[in-house]
Amino acid sequence: MEQVRSLPIPARGTLLSVEQAMQLAISEAYKGGPRVSPNPLVGSVVLDREGRFLACGYHEFYGGPHAEVNALKNLSDEELKDAHVIVTLEPCAHEGKTPSCAKMIAKLPVKKVTFGLIDPNPLVAGQGAAILHKVGIQADVFTSADKKLEQQIKTQLEEVCEAFLWNFRQKKVFVALKMASSLDGQVALKSGESQWITGPESREFVHYIRSCYDAILVGKGTIEFDDPSLNIRHPQIEKKNKVVVIDGEAELLAKFPDLKLAQIHDMQDVFWCVAADLKEEAQAKVAKMSKAPQMVFVKTNVGGDLDLEDLLAQLYQLGLRSVLVEGGAMTASSFVAQCLVNRIWMFQAPIIMGSGGSRSWTETVRIDQMKNKIQIRNPRYQTFGGDFMITGTL
Amino acid sequence: MEQVRSLPIPARGTLLSVEQAMQLAISEAYKGGPRVSPNPLVGSVVLDREGRFLACGYHEFYGGPHAEVNALKNLSDEELKDAHVIVTLEPCAHEGKTPSCAKMIAKLPVKKVTFGLIDPNPLVAGQGAAILHKVGIQADVFTSADKKLEQQIKTQLEEVCEAFLWNFRQKKVFVALKMASSLDGQVALKSGESQWITGPESREFVHYIRSCYDAILVGKGTIEFDDPSLNIRHPQIEKKNKVVVIDGEAELLAKFPDLKLAQIHDMQDVFWCVAADLKEEAQAKVAKMSKAPQMVFVKTNVGGDLDLEDLLAQLYQLGLRSVLVEGGAMTASSFVAQCLVNRIWMFQAPIIMGSGGSRSWTETVRIDQMKNKIQIRNPRYQTFGGDFMITGTL
Repeated sequence: MEQVRSLPIPARGTLLSVEQAMQLAISEAYKGGPRVSPNPLVGSVVLDREGRFLACGYHEFYGGPHAEVNALKNLSDEELKDAHVIVTLEPCAHEGKTPSCAKMIAKLPVKKVTFGLIDPNPLVAGQGAAILHKVGIQADVFTSADKKLEQQIKTQLEEVCEAFLWNFRQKKVFVALKMASSLDGQVALKSGESQWITGPESREFVHYIRSCYDAILVGKGTIEFDDPSLNIRHPQIEKKNKVVVIDGEAELLAKFPDLKLAQIHDMQDVFWCVAADLKEEAQAKVAKMSKAPQMVFVKTNVGGDLDLEDLLAQLYQLGLRSVLVEGGAMTASSFVAQCLVNRIWMFQAPIIMGSGGSRSWTETVRIDQMKNKIQIRNPRYQTFGGDFMITGTL
Repeated sequence: MEQVRSLPIPARGTLLSVEQAMQLAISEAYKGGPRVSPNPLVGSVVLDREGRFLACGYHEFYGGPHAEVNALKNLSDEELKDAHVIVTLEPCAHEGKTPSCAKMIAKLPVKKVTFGLIDPNPLVAGQGAAILHKVGIQADVFTSADKKLEQQIKTQLEEVCEAFLWNFRQKKVFVALKMASSLDGQVALKSGESQWITGPESREFVHYIRSCYDAILVGKGTIEFDDPSLNIRHPQIEKKNKVVVIDGEAELLAKFPDLKLAQIHDMQDVFWCVAADLKEEAQAKVAKMSKAPQMVFVKTNVGGDLDLEDLLAQLYQLGLRSVLVEGGAMTASSFVAQCLVNRIWMFQAPIIMGSGGSRSWTETVRIDQMKNKIQIRNPRYQTFGGDFMITGTL
């Protein structure tokens, strides 16, 4: 399956450098993409005493065994004698839904543990390593003699669990933005027509990306025009996702029962965001429905638009940890203009739509001087059929 | 040097398939980029009787020896016994600035000639091959058992001499468009500020691209705002280029002597395009100048803008065979809207400029339905530092 990073699993016995092993652990971690939220994505690789590949594993689903457990589970003590365990995140010190990984490894005859990131929780950071040190196992944060490669890998290590880190550090929803535009940056004609800008290869990858976030967020215009399913349709992924709809003035709410959304999703998975001023009116509409979405009443700002920060804060309270904003043009533009986007997934098709009769995804973004432009950090590029995709953080 | 396609020259004796040899011949052809216009770019590879690499060469400069001559020149009759000559274009049958390549090869002990494209001139097409057949040398158009690869290579064969083919078939100037935009398709702020959207790696490649066309074409706005040199500044390329300026209402003309352009370029290399209605007025201005550009008086269309087709036709008459349109936004948009662009070179930087306060390169392009979108054919992608580039034909 095409995923964010995807390396083949080497044959047993293949000699790997610690850098190669860490990159493989990152690739493994991504396999948990659709299922681990709100836990972090974690991957692990085990090398024998001579640095040869033995096994790998990843955190597969929320509440399930951690990556190290999956990597180590089929290896004998003989195989693990003086082995080297590589893991993207510091082995946990505490018992949670599963036993402590550090304590589990401490019982094994391994020689060395290299982890990518220290536990982000300052209260327990370093405690996993300390448990290992106590029994004579070397446990160190990943470094490399090749400082450029080290920096690249550290960036990837942060990226693979970026939503978790953001949630933990900021107590906020991680916001990703997915856009499909023409080469001239247009996402829809003025008529609203936008299907299909990109090709089938891009669209399959978009369903994979959808699976990596808790919810898909759209403005009401997108629903009015396309009546989309907003679910995950990928040959190798089965996952129910949540949906967030922004309908500030509650205009679309009355039509909710007729939408494809209402047929496909469980009602506890659909969040309908309306201005707080319209609470009673909206509740009256909902009361008449045989099935109704979860209502989220959001503060409005001076312009009368929903306050997106309040909206995100409420979604966080409701248990959502990440959303993928998928449009339309104005919704995307509002998130960008208010600097609320953590990661962008931008697909571009090799077509020209002409800005004279179509809509950009940054209409409300105004930059007065080039030095104030919005930089996309750590950009990466990938092609899908005739399209290309750029992703990076904002 | 980074060029459009760039393959390393293999060690002598390396076994090459005819497909690999043809791709190498294409890569060689590109090395002539800056110097062969109005001739076609042509490359050639010679394999020995066992299909092993002997030598390669390309058409280096206008009027200079053809590709086959350069590839064959240092090989002995012994080495050429039953050799296989691969060349991107049918060996020429006629004597022009140089002797006939087909007649030259006919005197050699080679066994086989494979050429990429038949001579585009229907009056001589096949005559080069016929000269070779007459002396018992096999001479065939390139084919491959791998039909997908064959199609890819044939596309590259057309591309490598696309300006020449367009000139020959249409008797028109080949128009390339180079744009540097943000990820949201913006090329300048409303203030006019646009330096620098892309990074130094992209900009070096742009100077290479400039060298592959006869002239750089810009609108007067670009000159007013940036006072650019519009010359070729590339560490490995020394070439004087021509410059075309569109100044329909002759507003900038009086300032010409003070422009950087006027200091840097030879006056016969600068073409200043003004509405035909203003001919006398413009000539009066020019008469007062100590140095003045070449004047081109162009028909206007109903809107009062210069008729770009007439402009291109006049440039063709003046000996120009290809131009690189470099902006600004409105100039680019006019060429796109009027379907006058043959090839696009689009550089995108990983930044967001916001369409709310900036300018797109397709403002005057209006598409009413998605089915009428402008498709970029045979798109290829390349990254330069943090930027990426897409090129294709329109």
